[in-house]
Amino acid sequence: GLLKESGSAGADSAPKSVAGPGLTIEVKDGVRTIKLNRPEKRNAMTAEMYDAIGKSLTEANTDSATNVVVLTGSGEYFCSGNDVSNFTIVKDIKSTADAACERLRACITSCINCQKPLIILVNGPAIGIGVTILGLADIVYASERAHFTTPFSSLGLTPEACSTYTFPRIMGYTKANEVLLFNAKITARQAEATGIVSEVFPDKTFAAETAKRVQAMAKLPVKSLVYTKDLIRGRERKLLHEINVSECDRVNERCQSEDSMNAIAKYFYREK
Amino acid sequence: GLLKESGSAGADSAPKSVAGPGLTIEVKDGVRTIKLNRPEKRNAMTAEMYDAIGKSLTEANTDSATNVVVLTGSGEYFCSGNDVSNFTIVKDIKSTADAACERLRACITSCINCQKPLIILVNGPAIGIGVTILGLADIVYASERAHFTTPFSSLGLTPEACSTYTFPRIMGYTKANEVLLFNAKITARQAEATGIVSEVFPDKTFAAETAKRVQAMAKLPVKSLVYTKDLIRGRERKLLHEINVSECDRVNERCQSEDSMNAIAKYFYREK
Amino acid sequence: GLLKESGSAGADSAPKSVAGPGLTIEVKDGVRTIKLNRPEKRNAMTAEMYDAIGKSLTEANTDSATNVVVLTGSGEYFCSGNDVSNFTIVKDIKSTADAACERLRACITSCINCQKPLIILVNGPAIGIGVTILGLADIVYASERAHFTTPFSSLGLTPEACSTYTFPRIMGYTKANEVLLFNAKITARQAEATGIVSEVFPDKTFAAETAKRVQAMAKLPVKSLVYTKDLIRGRERKLLHEINVSECDRVNERCQSEDSMNAIAKYFYREK
Repeated sequence: GLLKESGSAGADSAPKSVAGPGLTIEVKDGVRTIKLNRPEKRNAMTAEMYDAIGKSLTEANTDSATNVVVLTGSGEYFCSGNDVSNFTIVKDIKSTADAACERLRACITSCINCQKPLIILVNGPAIGIGVTILGLADIVYASERAHFTTPFSSLGLTPEACSTYTFPRIMGYTKANEVLLFNAKITARQAEATGIVSEVFPDKTFAAETAKRVQAMAKLPVKSLVYTKDLIRGRERKLLHEINVSECDRVNERCQSEDSMNAIAKYFYREK
Repeated sequence: GLLKESGSAGADSAPKSVAGPGLTIEVKDGVRTIKLNRPEKRNAMTAEMYDAIGKSLTEANTDSATNVVVLTGSGEYFCSGNDVSNFTIVKDIKSTADAACERLRACITSCINCQKPLIILVNGPAIGIGVTILGLADIVYASERAHFTTPFSSLGLTPEACSTYTFPRIMGYTKANEVLLFNAKITARQAEATGIVSEVFPDKTFAAETAKRVQAMAKLPVKSLVYTKDLIRGRERKLLHEINVSECDRVNERCQSEDSMNAIAKYFYREK
Repeated sequence: GLLKESGSAGADSAPKSVAGPGLTIEVKDGVRTIKLNRPEKRNAMTAEMYDAIGKSLTEANTDSATNVVVLTGSGEYFCSGNDVSNFTIVKDIKSTADAACERLRACITSCINCQKPLIILVNGPAIGIGVTILGLADIVYASERAHFTTPFSSLGLTPEACSTYTFPRIMGYTKANEVLLFNAKITARQAEATGIVSEVFPDKTFAAETAKRVQAMAKLPVKSLVYTKDLIRGRERKLLHEINVSECDRVNERCQSEDSMNAIAKYFYREK
């Protein structure tokens, strides 16, 4: 199962890399840190990464060693979206789309059901699912170096991760639509102004400053955190699950569509 | 009925004016542009203009030549609200109010049902319905010269166009109430900060900059735009229709009230 | 027994202090002003103050002399939260918690049911309930000297006054959670940026500037104000009552919990 390390630590207590699924998971001092760890692929999301994130979030709910959950990335990027390899190595497009969208749905289901505070540390640029997921986070800290890109309609696609609900609620329709409909690319400061980011830090101090804050958060009485989160998110959980299904169904239809095929073909044509 | 031109174009491709109802409608390169065109009356809304806007928005849903809809104004103003002539040339106040509110309700119904992205280009000052309508837009660009005035309670009236729902959602209660309850007059930059405006442009470059962006939007795969808008707005459409009815019923009662009569009498007394 | 004064006025028309429950209530020129008046205790809330506020808000609904309601504080603070004396002089912790939470619930119920515009003038620092109550206000003006502190989880508690609903709606999740989950202390300017404050004034001009605005608001047609507020808040009133009950039930459980006991013990230990 789950990629949990029991914090062997040593002289320094840096998280150990786990081979395989492209991420590391560490639980230490009340903090469960899920770190995307394919820096050479700008932390693009593979099938295994979706599965491992979902499992770790589910385990966090019942793990007494976890007070807060951190999601972050290693290297230059936070997350560059879906790994294109998920969609290019295909025999049967329908079954590939079905499997990919079911995986996405299950991972987002785990995010919606996450009972502990979910803190996302956006260490660098974010694309696609790396942006939309922020609407399900409780706290988002970003490095000043981060920027946010959401190329859905330009690829013939539609947004996911309940962003069609969370983004308009957070920033209003006219800002959300620049992101969700019209492929906006925004800076960390702009993201902070819209409210999808809690606070922006200079890149140099980002790791140290956010670590300090997360450690303080993890020392708070966990029941107060869990009950407060439940008061905030609990009453919209059922709706979020419905939205997740609607969005994934639409992504499924879209990624098999001519629009999407043309956009991808154009993309590869331009690249070469 | 509908005032659709088939884009005859020519040496230059400026939209042709259509005589009659105070607005021009042009469909070109995927963009349906509805332009309020009574500059001498600061684009005050007449009965015919409400009807024509509603019809054009409805037609846009099934028109394969329309990818996005633009609403804007010609001359100095975007829209100065309702034409007072609607309410002054009356024999029977109740039937006049009934007809005016039914017209308003039908036009707003069409806005709520608009399936294509609705982009509002606020070319100059906006008053009343010229402000409240922005909450149903998907993108709002404003000239720096624009300002926004909502004199509802000072005229004994109440707001419309679902703004009692959209404005608090977009900007929170304490900002929305300055506008909806207390007749705030805000600048384009302030409107941008609240989130009812996506972006503000210098007046000199407003037309060129927004045209460039709208043209790019209209080239995106229309199905992605329509499906994304449906994910964002679809689940609140039923509620918006109910709110539209409640607001129009209240406007109807209010515009026949002593408060409103007194406010209008005072207004005309001051003017002379 | 409501603490209403009939505005005896005199050379100057300053509100008279009413002895007893720690606040003064004055109705004058259409403005009902409820002023927290325990400056020596930084306007900490006692049982009597909760009851008196609730009664005054209920009376405002049917009082034809009240067009708008103002809630503010005297002295340096706006409100420093619950008076610890409510919770320290106890024989039976359960019955004390039951009574305190029922009082809180009843007072917030009156806020939710308040039909006239509720304007909060934050004359100085606000803590706990002095912050969460802002989400039920229609207008909030703050002195630049104000700051806002919400030490819920650090005390083993959870938020109240429907803030788990209103704060995420007003400012989005990632900002709301800094306040509701993680004990943020924010400045007046930061509060204004999030939208829980309408406008900030320099401390020197705060009283005069806000008085001028409130007086202008109280001269507007009251029916327009009441009907507009009902359009904005009416449809979520039922939900707010449910949330109020959920939050108070949780506060009740929490203030009897070991987490809370430990936090309070630690607090007193540190103090001495």
